[in-house]
Amino acid sequence: MLRLYNGLVMPMTSGCEASPGEVWTEGDRIVHAGPVSGETPAFEREIDLRGGLVMPGFKNAHTHSAMTFLRSFADDLPLQSWLFDKVFPLEDRLTPEAVYAFTRLAILEYLAGGTTASFDMYFHREAYAAANLDSGFRTVICGALSSGDSLSIAADDYARFNSMGPLVGYRFGVHAEYTADEALLRGMGELVRQYRAPFWSHNSETRGEAEGSRERHGMSPTAYFDSLGLYDYGGGGFHCVHLDPGDFDIFAGRGLWAVTCPASNAKLASGVAPLGGFAQRGIHLAVGTDGPASNNALDMFREMYLACVLQKLASGDAAACPAEGMLLAACSGGALAMGLDDCDCLAPGKAADLTVIDLDRPNMRPRHDIAKNLVYSGTRDCVRLTMVAGRVLYEDGEFHVGEDVEKIYAEAEKYTKEICDT
Amino acid sequence: MLRLYNGLVMPMTSGCEASPGEVWTEGDRIVHAGPVSGETPAFEREIDLRGGLVMPGFKNAHTHSAMTFLRSFADDLPLQSWLFDKVFPLEDRLTPEAVYAFTRLAILEYLAGGTTASFDMYFHREAYAAANLDSGFRTVICGALSSGDSLSIAADDYARFNSMGPLVGYRFGVHAEYTADEALLRGMGELVRQYRAPFWSHNSETRGEAEGSRERHGMSPTAYFDSLGLYDYGGGGFHCVHLDPGDFDIFAGRGLWAVTCPASNAKLASGVAPLGGFAQRGIHLAVGTDGPASNNALDMFREMYLACVLQKLASGDAAACPAEGMLLAACSGGALAMGLDDCDCLAPGKAADLTVIDLDRPNMRPRHDIAKNLVYSGTRDCVRLTMVAGRVLYEDGEFHVGEDVEKIYAEAEKYTKEICDT
Repeated sequence: MLRLYNGLVMPMTSGCEASPGEVWTEGDRIVHAGPVSGETPAFEREIDLRGGLVMPGFKNAHTHSAMTFLRSFADDLPLQSWLFDKVFPLEDRLTPEAVYAFTRLAILEYLAGGTTASFDMYFHREAYAAANLDSGFRTVICGALSSGDSLSIAADDYARFNSMGPLVGYRFGVHAEYTADEALLRGMGELVRQYRAPFWSHNSETRGEAEGSRERHGMSPTAYFDSLGLYDYGGGGFHCVHLDPGDFDIFAGRGLWAVTCPASNAKLASGVAPLGGFAQRGIHLAVGTDGPASNNALDMFREMYLACVLQKLASGDAAACPAEGMLLAACSGGALAMGLDDCDCLAPGKAADLTVIDLDRPNMRPRHDIAKNLVYSGTRDCVRLTMVAGRVLYEDGEFHVGEDVEKIYAEAEKYTKEICDT
Repeated sequence: MLRLYNGLVMPMTSGCEASPGEVWTEGDRIVHAGPVSGETPAFEREIDLRGGLVMPGFKNAHTHSAMTFLRSFADDLPLQSWLFDKVFPLEDRLTPEAVYAFTRLAILEYLAGGTTASFDMYFHREAYAAANLDSGFRTVICGALSSGDSLSIAADDYARFNSMGPLVGYRFGVHAEYTADEALLRGMGELVRQYRAPFWSHNSETRGEAEGSRERHGMSPTAYFDSLGLYDYGGGGFHCVHLDPGDFDIFAGRGLWAVTCPASNAKLASGVAPLGGFAQRGIHLAVGTDGPASNNALDMFREMYLACVLQKLASGDAAACPAEGMLLAACSGGALAMGLDDCDCLAPGKAADLTVIDLDRPNMRPRHDIAKNLVYSGTRDCVRLTMVAGRVLYEDGEFHVGEDVEKIYAEAEKYTKEICDT
């Protein structure tokens, strides 16, 4: 057993309260989280929290991890030239080896920021599943089929990735309404019903995408997907910037998850998702960074901050979008969205996916409200330790991911050069 | 002499290029910055950059440092109740001892984020000047007179703080148009002309403030100040969210500095400053965090990111507000705005105010563009060292500020309790 002691625990079993306590883990599970009384058992390792906070890890509920290779390559460009002149042509050159290397790099960044799982959507799925397994990191792969893809890909992936053990999962999905024809979507609907499985996609990221769907189908992307039965077993959408009130009805009625990606939406000038409307309708919320080509970080602290302040700015109301709800969305919300029902909070039997926050950093003082400190002044330099499935993968600035960090950097730089230098 | 070697130097003498080189300092000055050839002299200390980057420190060009005591105390409230029910009543209880303690805490956060100077505006100026001197940090105090204050305060402060040595300076200023009556402003105009000195104030932070000025004077705050001769020797404004085209003319014509505070403006739902318009007119730009009651961090990385992406979002143009200009505004821009003409870049004879960025952090890879990495994916955990006036005040997570960090935290918590717990 491993013991985290001498600090505070924010279990997130209900709300964001933190109180003195300990967390004990055995294998990949939590066996205790909370106050301790009486005798303690023997431990293999004891980690002194030094007054710090243990909390569930952040869940990055929408990302394209391997896009690290495009970080700072094509910023400050109009959206269309960014996508068509820079991103797409280079993505065509990706190999499984390159995606493996770029995902390895992304995982380091997740760990340094207290993130313990990603909901990842990209090419060469086998390669990034391997990068996660080799690093000891947790990922759920989201299918990203588009017109012309065989549905057998999805069925095969479902079987393959969902049997790779607890660190890898797979959810059905298409890239987006505008890249999926009706044949694909009808087939996907059959799969979803056959497997009683949730369905995911990019959804209403840009105004053009939402308007295009109305032209093509007389319906929003959400309404169109729903009309084909794709949401019969839940799921959700990534971005959800340009949802309309009818879409809210579908999201609320079907219990769908909206995954907000505020940094990417701001940087690409796509807009601000209507989080206030989601909250009013009780729509489930999770938070993602999107890929590092459009963000450009993989930093859930920045994402939480942006989500809250952009909502205040867009609504003209400084009281909009309080911090506690955002913290829950970024941790337990993400877990439940991804179907990681045992990664949502710290309690006996749950997965040992957690992060330790150093409360003795200047931006964590004073301590009026720890949850607000995390959301409004929290930064990655406060992350002291990140544990996934009971294994300490990051501690005091050092990574323990089964590979030398310098080698991971060198490989990522090598493949970046091969792909981008022409 | 001290030597920083084995890395890259971004001197910012022109643009944001970084190239292999060294920085040597002697006392509080830089004696060399750039490539090295031939023999090197003897050094008292040699710091291996381990491939990292030396660059000028960030300049936080608008802050209320001591407001650390209100961090996470009153968020998620409408602006008026935040200000009148929470902030103002507690500020009345501030003592010099409390302001000293709270400023000490803020300085730790500046250092951890690579910031080397603050343009600070608050109560109990003597106390926060002392906190800066005792920490070895650099500050320029901005006057914040309001109606009823005697002009002799400004004249006395000018003499006193500008003779405290190189770490402390003072600039004339009033709190804002809406808290300064005509008698005060006319008197301030005489002072400004007598001393041939720049003039500063909060300016057009909220729409209400700008509209109120038009009702009271038939002019914007900028036009009103200018009509009284306050800008005869330059200066600038903090926030500058609701400037109009006429204000642009005055800012451009007088060579004034606009200090943008995007996080605070977003969190308090004040708006997005028209940085695109500033750039078109060649208006000088600097960047500030505002106080930690409204931000809530003192983090120039977050500030640069927000300034760029909010501009893209507000203009609907992903190409708006490129990263390089923002990086220059946050470093050399701030220095020149504050009148720290020898802190703007790394060159022989300039002040040794700099920061070292660890480029072996995952979010600094790959290295397509270091300036863009800093602005779009940079975070505080990449800051390895911060030097002010030739003294290393922060290195590898440890502070060297002439006082035990635990004591600084304890004092800040003690005074916070005294003031906030009632």
